[in-house]
Amino acid sequence: MATQGKVITCKAAVAYEPNKPLVIEDVEVAPPQAGEVRVQILFTALCHTDAYTWSGKDPEGLFPCILGHEAAGIVESVGEGVTEVKPGDHVIPCYQAECKECKFCKSGKTNLCGKIRGATGVGVMMNDKKSRFSVRGTPIYHFMGTSTFSQYTVVHDVSVAKIDPKAPLEKVCLLGCGVPTGLGAVWNTAKVEAGSNVAIFGLGTVGLAVAEGAKSAGASRIIGIDIDNRKFERAKDFGVTEFVNPKDHDKPIQQVLVDMTDGGVDYSFECIGNVSIMRAALECCHKGWGTSVIVGVAASGQEISTRPFQLVTGRVWKGTAFGGFKSRSQVPQLVDKYMNKEIKIDEYITHNLTLEEINKAFDLLHGGDCLRCVLKV
Amino acid sequence: MATQGKVITCKAAVAYEPNKPLVIEDVEVAPPQAGEVRVQILFTALCHTDAYTWSGKDPEGLFPCILGHEAAGIVESVGEGVTEVKPGDHVIPCYQAECKECKFCKSGKTNLCGKIRGATGVGVMMNDKKSRFSVRGTPIYHFMGTSTFSQYTVVHDVSVAKIDPKAPLEKVCLLGCGVPTGLGAVWNTAKVEAGSNVAIFGLGTVGLAVAEGAKSAGASRIIGIDIDNRKFERAKDFGVTEFVNPKDHDKPIQQVLVDMTDGGVDYSFECIGNVSIMRAALECCHKGWGTSVIVGVAASGQEISTRPFQLVTGRVWKGTAFGGFKSRSQVPQLVDKYMNKEIKIDEYITHNLTLEEINKAFDLLHGGDCLRCVLKV
Repeated sequence: MATQGKVITCKAAVAYEPNKPLVIEDVEVAPPQAGEVRVQILFTALCHTDAYTWSGKDPEGLFPCILGHEAAGIVESVGEGVTEVKPGDHVIPCYQAECKECKFCKSGKTNLCGKIRGATGVGVMMNDKKSRFSVRGTPIYHFMGTSTFSQYTVVHDVSVAKIDPKAPLEKVCLLGCGVPTGLGAVWNTAKVEAGSNVAIFGLGTVGLAVAEGAKSAGASRIIGIDIDNRKFERAKDFGVTEFVNPKDHDKPIQQVLVDMTDGGVDYSFECIGNVSIMRAALECCHKGWGTSVIVGVAASGQEISTRPFQLVTGRVWKGTAFGGFKSRSQVPQLVDKYMNKEIKIDEYITHNLTLEEINKAFDLLHGGDCLRCVLKV
Repeated sequence: MATQGKVITCKAAVAYEPNKPLVIEDVEVAPPQAGEVRVQILFTALCHTDAYTWSGKDPEGLFPCILGHEAAGIVESVGEGVTEVKPGDHVIPCYQAECKECKFCKSGKTNLCGKIRGATGVGVMMNDKKSRFSVRGTPIYHFMGTSTFSQYTVVHDVSVAKIDPKAPLEKVCLLGCGVPTGLGAVWNTAKVEAGSNVAIFGLGTVGLAVAEGAKSAGASRIIGIDIDNRKFERAKDFGVTEFVNPKDHDKPIQQVLVDMTDGGVDYSFECIGNVSIMRAALECCHKGWGTSVIVGVAASGQEISTRPFQLVTGRVWKGTAFGGFKSRSQVPQLVDKYMNKEIKIDEYITHNLTLEEINKAFDLLHGGDCLRCVLKV
């Protein structure tokens, strides 16, 4: 590649300050160092975690930064010692790394690789604890180890999933976050069995992916809970069989669900990030075995509560991150499932824009109609 | 039997009012009705749940009542339709029933049989919603469906475990509550694997039974946490390998444990009933897989809290009741394990008194030296 080993100047959307419109800038992207990969991002979607950090409510948010973590692209060049991908490979950057060597990766019990967290948590790269992005000499922080709102980004080699080059990047970019999170919450974390009753709180992309996962697992009843009635029609296509709007009831929503299901659901999923709803999701579970999975991300500092009796009488409270999928190993498998028409992706994409229109895309994300808006980068 | 079908007048310890000494009375015990069993109680131990209800802090506590739920005896007579036990059988009354027919029993997922809860929760028998106990014509409430602080009691047939008649009743009475709760929390609820690190909060009978269970499961490190240093020597005999007194540390106890174990323990058990400790027990678990089991019973109305991030990053919060053991099926197996010297019982019995001395026994229970005090009834 003509660009290999050189700084690339390209367009990126820079978040200079919380809650201020992103600015499309000419950004310098340094070459990848040892163990790093420079990726040309072709398509990126927006996720609520981007919006959360952008809002300034995330106390760990660093500015200026380049947001974005749900994307697909092509490897431009690799740094020293990188063996698992090469220039030209089609890839999905993964905010959850998988080094296959650390205590976490070797445990067989979790997907939460710990290798690069010390760097990605503070917006830099492991090798020299610095950023690869700058604008007119000023460093710009990385975000979640991915920073996909840029035509080029640099990521750690343990954060790159190599995928089938025939897969349409404008679709499979969604496999970087929301869809796997929902499917995996069902398949990996809850392990829903055929015949189960399931409650899903929040019918955005993640909630719908939970419904899709539950349907494929053979759940009998898939009850969608949302305060927006308009979401039900669409949710049916993803497997939701019943709809409950808490606004239609005087009783607490957990009681409504317990009454509907002769004692409670077998599995519940909180896909909103609201700690009160997390409590309701636990308490609508059946005594003796009901399992509730927290999928949504709550605002910093907020806490969940319940009476311990809820757990002593057999309910289980869990959570999931990236649906428990091991990123480099399993994202390529999800791409293959999409190619084999075993999982949906197209149906989650409600809008298509360009990187230049990113501020409009954030506005859309906050409206009820948008599931995923994919930006051509 | 000469007493069959007749009212039996015998000695029992009656709790007339919260927090007032129990009174040894001549109590009339009515014959068992359909589906009921009258049991001559020979030995009973005291448990903290008896003390909790006696204290008046249990909002569901009913007075006057006959407390007691950890005992062993011999069937005196049975009511109509009772087929699984007969007069002369040696039995352990079980506060957790097992009907083998209800939704819970058939689920294969829980030991929380629901058949008789409607009656036992309000201190009466299912058949006529009345008590079988009275003193000079005044009904005395049942407690936990067992009421073992009496020379004779009436229980539901689904609450009686028939055991090996060779087993010493003065020992195996402990298999009615505390010891199975601790062992089962490890074996059934947490499913601790060999090589695991385990933390146990509270080194009373239940905590020591957790240690014994963890040792038999092959745990590598079994860390006992208690504010009474005197408990450590004894705890070693049950398998505890390290002792931590939170008073010796300025840091929160969860941080102390995380530091001691390179990131946290694999399993933790709260055996106190303190909601702050329940939080510490969760938060001392290892990211990615640590599982915390609530074993202790908190006071009514108290709540547990944590940041949802604790669960989203892979910790699991569960609880256990009677250690997840199915009572009628598995208590006899535990008796056999004791007879085969596979589990301890004798070592938990620190005091022996008689029913007449029950108020002294309650005093002992609140001292640090007493694990279990067995009363000859």
